[in-house]
Amino acid sequence: MIDLQDQHADFPQPNRILKLARRPVGVPVMTDWKILEEPVRAPMPGECVVAVDHISIDPAMRGWIDDVSSYLPPVRLDQVMRALGVGRVVRSRDDRLPVGTVVQGLLGVQRFAVVNGRWLNSVDESLGSARSHLGVLGQTGLTAYFGLFSVGRPVAGDTVVVSAAAGAVGSIVGQLARLAGCRVIGVAGGPEKCRFVREELGFDEAVDYKSENVTEALSGLCPTGIDVYFDNVGGLILEAALANLALHARVVICGAISQYNATIVSPGPSNLWQLLVKRATMQGFLVIDHTDDFPRARAKLSEWLSRGALLGPETVVQGDVDQFPEALLGLFRGDNVGKLVLSLDVSST
Amino acid sequence: MIDLQDQHADFPQPNRILKLARRPVGVPVMTDWKILEEPVRAPMPGECVVAVDHISIDPAMRGWIDDVSSYLPPVRLDQVMRALGVGRVVRSRDDRLPVGTVVQGLLGVQRFAVVNGRWLNSVDESLGSARSHLGVLGQTGLTAYFGLFSVGRPVAGDTVVVSAAAGAVGSIVGQLARLAGCRVIGVAGGPEKCRFVREELGFDEAVDYKSENVTEALSGLCPTGIDVYFDNVGGLILEAALANLALHARVVICGAISQYNATIVSPGPSNLWQLLVKRATMQGFLVIDHTDDFPRARAKLSEWLSRGALLGPETVVQGDVDQFPEALLGLFRGDNVGKLVLSLDVSST
Repeated sequence: MIDLQDQHADFPQPNRILKLARRPVGVPVMTDWKILEEPVRAPMPGECVVAVDHISIDPAMRGWIDDVSSYLPPVRLDQVMRALGVGRVVRSRDDRLPVGTVVQGLLGVQRFAVVNGRWLNSVDESLGSARSHLGVLGQTGLTAYFGLFSVGRPVAGDTVVVSAAAGAVGSIVGQLARLAGCRVIGVAGGPEKCRFVREELGFDEAVDYKSENVTEALSGLCPTGIDVYFDNVGGLILEAALANLALHARVVICGAISQYNATIVSPGPSNLWQLLVKRATMQGFLVIDHTDDFPRARAKLSEWLSRGALLGPETVVQGDVDQFPEALLGLFRGDNVGKLVLSLDVSST
Repeated sequence: MIDLQDQHADFPQPNRILKLARRPVGVPVMTDWKILEEPVRAPMPGECVVAVDHISIDPAMRGWIDDVSSYLPPVRLDQVMRALGVGRVVRSRDDRLPVGTVVQGLLGVQRFAVVNGRWLNSVDESLGSARSHLGVLGQTGLTAYFGLFSVGRPVAGDTVVVSAAAGAVGSIVGQLARLAGCRVIGVAGGPEKCRFVREELGFDEAVDYKSENVTEALSGLCPTGIDVYFDNVGGLILEAALANLALHARVVICGAISQYNATIVSPGPSNLWQLLVKRATMQGFLVIDHTDDFPRARAKLSEWLSRGALLGPETVVQGDVDQFPEALLGLFRGDNVGKLVLSLDVSST
């Protein structure tokens, strides 16, 4: 038997942990969370202690904290908030992950994670920065890659429309569609985001849903209809895209951020019959179904990244786990451009 | 030049024609239609005069009379109402279709249709009755066949749910799914229709949407979820099915009869994100995209029909074109079981 108590005493710093205090109704508020300091327990055989450097902030988090069984079980009350993160192994009882290894996994919103090594992936920093393994080289970029290429299946010359175009996934989707020879139109909120996707990311066109009638704008910009619509938002923008589908269009349901904080049931698009008229397909997907192909996809993303054909925009919040609730709210407000990451400037050993 | 006036005089009976007088708002009323008698014009080279025996009454008709461009152009005002029909060639200037040939085509709601022979298909009565070529051997049965097998793609052991289960398409879909080794649950309105699909058509289960909570009923009847949902109705029943999908489910969008008479925009299902959670596919289709495969499918349907493995239920309204408006209303009220046909007992030459 290992004397765990002794090994607790060994670890020089306390953990700082953000936990779910109660289930939010609508937009999560500060009192839905609590922050505690606890000792870092000693790793058991096979486990590592990881000093968390970067925490991924994702729309899907809102679903994880509802008391609804979904593709992952709900985060439990009084447990650390689930989050993907990147960090460094600082204690190891897994020979494959020696101290100093940079790893990615579900580290949670905390300074130190004690995780079984089998749930950690070592990060290949030759492909891109550690932080980019949460963004363009992480689940974000992989979601864009598989959603677009495996579900949307664009061919050169297609018209591709993506919502939340300046967001983490949308910004990558549009660039990948351009690389595939498509004409790309982004839907984003506000003139600055529209400028960003056109001028920085090279989208052909952008529609500002805050100031334009999206249905009419898409109708004007897509005279032959939308071949692939990549949806991150749901709601009225999905409806506007459905109204402008081309024959045999593919609609990729990647997310529905407009709906995640709804406290009343929000109606869906009123024009689903357009799928019939246009013989179109709407398909939902989760990137976790494509894990076998992650290395191949990551290598392609890395190659485009390294030769400057692909940008991985990021919005980085510096601070401690305390900044998480406000950063999550910012995500739902649309404050970020590209991938939103909370980088901890406090972890060390 | 043919002297058309002379040939008009030749035709012994007037045509009786139901025309669209104005575009309905909501449910079509009597004054949206007008009935006229006109002489039957002489056929030009390549044309036939067809005495209409049976007129197909279909939910899609409601869409055809809106002033909205869709997969077919809108029926024009003061023109004969578009309808599929079966009749007999009584005058022919197309050598391939001699007088007496039984034909199927877009004959319209009228006693006599003058149609170019290239738009007519001769009916093989060895496969089934002339009238059944509007139902189980016609576009109705073919819609069920291709929607289920090409889009729904059930495999033996799957749970298949079909809405409007006692209706023209739904009644065939459920029987075909049973023939494919699936467990079949129908959603229908009222105890008599539920009894009909269970006892006459051999469905495993039926849910009465008029007296049951469909979401809860499907949850109870589909413990492992719905693998294929064949939707003829849209609206709340689609929402109930989405709430109960199995992983990788296929949702076939065949129709949305609950929406066709809506005068205010009716919201869609609020839970489209279930497509994401369940990695499911929703696909619209039109049977007219499968015309090349019609003979093969019709042969299979005929074989099942002839050996009693498949029933082609019909509700037949006897009368004249005057009965059409009321029969169409009956369709939207759900008066019919199986295929609704208006059979003209007046046509002769």
